[in-house]
Amino acid sequence: MSLDETAHKPHDRLAAYLAADMAAVNALIRERMASEHAPRIPEVTAHLVEAGGKRLRPMLTLAAARLCGYEGIHHVHLAATVEFIHTATLLHDDVVDESTQRRGRPSANLLWDNKSSVLVGDYLFARSFQLMTECGSMRVMEILSNASATIAEGEVLQLTAAQDLATTEEIYLNVVRGKTAALFAAATEVGGVIAGVPEAQVQALHAYGDALGIAFQMVDDLLDYGGTSAVIGKNTGDDFRERKLTLPVIKAVAAADAEERAFWTKVIARGQQDEGDLDRALGLMRRHGTLEATKIEAQAWAAKARTSLEILPEGELRTLLAEIADYVVARVS
Amino acid sequence: MSLDETAHKPHDRLAAYLAADMAAVNALIRERMASEHAPRIPEVTAHLVEAGGKRLRPMLTLAAARLCGYEGIHHVHLAATVEFIHTATLLHDDVVDESTQRRGRPSANLLWDNKSSVLVGDYLFARSFQLMTECGSMRVMEILSNASATIAEGEVLQLTAAQDLATTEEIYLNVVRGKTAALFAAATEVGGVIAGVPEAQVQALHAYGDALGIAFQMVDDLLDYGGTSAVIGKNTGDDFRERKLTLPVIKAVAAADAEERAFWTKVIARGQQDEGDLDRALGLMRRHGTLEATKIEAQAWAAKARTSLEILPEGELRTLLAEIADYVVARVS
Repeated sequence: MSLDETAHKPHDRLAAYLAADMAAVNALIRERMASEHAPRIPEVTAHLVEAGGKRLRPMLTLAAARLCGYEGIHHVHLAATVEFIHTATLLHDDVVDESTQRRGRPSANLLWDNKSSVLVGDYLFARSFQLMTECGSMRVMEILSNASATIAEGEVLQLTAAQDLATTEEIYLNVVRGKTAALFAAATEVGGVIAGVPEAQVQALHAYGDALGIAFQMVDDLLDYGGTSAVIGKNTGDDFRERKLTLPVIKAVAAADAEERAFWTKVIARGQQDEGDLDRALGLMRRHGTLEATKIEAQAWAAKARTSLEILPEGELRTLLAEIADYVVARVS
Repeated sequence: MSLDETAHKPHDRLAAYLAADMAAVNALIRERMASEHAPRIPEVTAHLVEAGGKRLRPMLTLAAARLCGYEGIHHVHLAATVEFIHTATLLHDDVVDESTQRRGRPSANLLWDNKSSVLVGDYLFARSFQLMTECGSMRVMEILSNASATIAEGEVLQLTAAQDLATTEEIYLNVVRGKTAALFAAATEVGGVIAGVPEAQVQALHAYGDALGIAFQMVDDLLDYGGTSAVIGKNTGDDFRERKLTLPVIKAVAAADAEERAFWTKVIARGQQDEGDLDRALGLMRRHGTLEATKIEAQAWAAKARTSLEILPEGELRTLLAEIADYVVARVS
């Protein structure tokens, strides 16, 4: 492991610090995505895995284990497990959202078909359970199977909450925990569990992952509206078109007068979106300051993530994890 | 537990014998299909679970555990686990096959949508892993996570083998093990594992489930062409229309002359199916005796299932399991 002091982003510095471990994770992923009988499986998986996501989740597992002084080899299995669960959910999400792009490439459901995405996702879920079983820790199995249930529940909740103007900030938080924070929290928690640190530190790692995941998703939802500057870019407005009730919209609906409420009912609940409606939505969010308010909430979760780290061992890894929390919210201008 | 001597089918007599255990399984299934946040989940699951499949798989787990003298409570968890895995695969299968009917009712993907079927299936997979984790046996986790991977692999293999006239009987057997026999074998094997019987008996239970599952699926594939009498009923020919390479077709393709091969290429490989083509396909299968040959293979697997039971404790349950093997193939006239 080496630390490249010149790398700018904390994410890149964490990747440099964990380079040897991550190489082992990538080798294990390549080995386990193979299939003796069905070559379609590694084809689909490789398309996604090799598109090179940021691998943030497996790095969190590696970092948590190392931070807690773990010296074994199972953190590599758990990091691969977490990445497989994440990849499986991406495959299924793209089917559910009818996506055509993922990580800047055509999505698997477009290149092959929805059937392949569903079944290869199932294969990766099963493979993830095989991998975690190899670690031999019932506590780890509990944490990761609970996280998988929370992820699926959050996805179903998002499906039924979409288009529903009655969606509250509490429901939004459950959706966010499901779609993002549950896996972040499990990723960091299992690192502490296999290292055998005291329960308070395990809980601190869970709290860090949970808060980081929530901050991360809130910022994602904010960036979908162009950030606090609400500038329309080429990827702006996907959530608006899919009529998702994300925090900036929920806050705008809560603050709406009768006329504004009629507008939200038309574009979100009824899905009648005309030319200029996204602009009008952005105008309403600016008027009520909901983009700024969302940013402030994301910053508060990032601060909570940092604070959670305080009872963990001091040092370079802890500093990097704290900086990642800051970096996640710094993505918003 | 009581044995209703008047019940005719061995399946019904097994159900009567295991009635108290099955009531506990059904209660656990109802409890665990609940969702605190997403009511869509129990709606979809109940639609399928309460349509009342035969619950053969969970009964196999209960029977195997009881046959091996198990007196604890975890066989109930494992039976529910097996039924959840099965239900999850049915939900995803219906999406993949674009089905409109399941267990005589409109399928979930039709009543709700494909999205709900995919995500609720994921939820049930995750729930199944939570349930098996509660049993605290790493060996059980290994068996069931391996079975889940084999199931998904078999489904992908079936997807890529469909329409491919080069599909061999060996590939067919891998597909059948994936789609049916892997879960049957895991269902019986884990019953022996939690009972703590000697390894040879555990392996015998695995062999029984594997052979029973293969016989079961071969008969299903045969019945899709009306059985050995090849009589067209209202459900005949689904596999033909979906261009699936099941054993009766694989054997007919292998025996085909040039003209017959051109026919199979047209209807299966190219998918050009005209009025009368199903009749012609049935005629070719009759001419080459492939329906009868498939039945003989299914009977051989059923015999293997029976034989596998010989080293297990004698008694009523062993007799019932042996009769189930006979009954599975007796479905074909």
